[in-house]
Amino acid sequence: MTTLYGYFRSSAAYRVRIALNLKGLDYDQVPVNLVKGEQRGGEHLTRNPQGMVPSLVLDDSSVVNQSLAICEYLDEVHPEPALLPVNALARARVRALAQSVACEIHPLNNLRVLKYLVRELGVDEAAKLAWYRHWITEGFAALEATLSADPSSGDFCHGNTPTLADICLVPQVYNAERFECDLSAYPTIQRIVANCRALPAFEKAAPEAQPDAS
Amino acid sequence: MTTLYGYFRSSAAYRVRIALNLKGLDYDQVPVNLVKGEQRGGEHLTRNPQGMVPSLVLDDSSVVNQSLAICEYLDEVHPEPALLPVNALARARVRALAQSVACEIHPLNNLRVLKYLVRELGVDEAAKLAWYRHWITEGFAALEATLSADPSSGDFCHGNTPTLADICLVPQVYNAERFECDLSAYPTIQRIVANCRALPAFEKAAPEAQPDAS
Repeated sequence: MTTLYGYFRSSAAYRVRIALNLKGLDYDQVPVNLVKGEQRGGEHLTRNPQGMVPSLVLDDSSVVNQSLAICEYLDEVHPEPALLPVNALARARVRALAQSVACEIHPLNNLRVLKYLVRELGVDEAAKLAWYRHWITEGFAALEATLSADPSSGDFCHGNTPTLADICLVPQVYNAERFECDLSAYPTIQRIVANCRALPAFEKAAPEAQPDAS
Repeated sequence: MTTLYGYFRSSAAYRVRIALNLKGLDYDQVPVNLVKGEQRGGEHLTRNPQGMVPSLVLDDSSVVNQSLAICEYLDEVHPEPALLPVNALARARVRALAQSVACEIHPLNNLRVLKYLVRELGVDEAAKLAWYRHWITEGFAALEATLSADPSSGDFCHGNTPTLADICLVPQVYNAERFECDLSAYPTIQRIVANCRALPAFEKAAPEAQPDAS
């Protein structure tokens, strides 16, 4: 059985849960508690030397790390339903949307980064929140502009079926809501996320639905 | 003619230059001066609403953004020489290595982030450097562990031809050297980067070889 090592609140693990669910794949979940630092434990480091989640361990014990690499792997090995369009330019658009979350917003608002701000730089709670919201605002404003201007956007980020872009967007919006970011300036993002959340694959992947939710 | 909007010192643009060179593709370069803030100018925002480089503009005026999406696009449209292996698990390994730079190290050490630290958080030069080196150290230690433990590593990050992983690694090492990070603990990274730099595709892509180098 495929096993996902994750954490209910990890955006990156949340992405992989959505992808697994969209593909209709069965998987076990083993929680790695990020708040307790279990990701830095020797056992987890053997499968993920970065000390991060998620890691996907396959039937034959092969390990796949990095959420976007895992999603692309799942898409290559289980092609239906596709997480990327067929056309190369459309694929690039979807990947760019996904990366605009995964490379530009999420890395800055990660737990380890927030901890560094507080512990090493002595940043107070208000400045930490301002940091968090700054990168959400920068990233979502650009994403809203991209999505609303392009007729390729549909019920979802690209057309009328969920893709890798939606898989990244929904966990980022979950995080933004958790940190009480004002999302009223992003109606396209909100509309797409509502459409995603109506699907069982996204619903079942939500942090509050996970066995380790607390 | 394909046109790359970039900046000589942008790691992300550097990645795309390497990919274009490895594919043997001709391209024009238009510099977008990040230090002068040209990426936030109206003209550039129409092609890249995130206000970032690189953007690749194709013959038919289509725009592809986000460096990894651009590299994957180039690999799909111009398959030889391949930037990813054939086997799905190997492809996942290469993508994960690339993302361990592009999602875990680079986003934290971007110019806009360093500016925020200084301007908004009042961080001094020493603390800014410590921040920079901290994420390099964390990221490179994990990458060194991954690369040195896995027999799939060869002359390059994966086997004996350059892949997307090397395309991300070389610009990150360039940045680390620029900020005088001690790289002596990463002999595998150093060996691979030396092999890359011996190839004309990497040499021609180096920041100092670009028309806007200053």
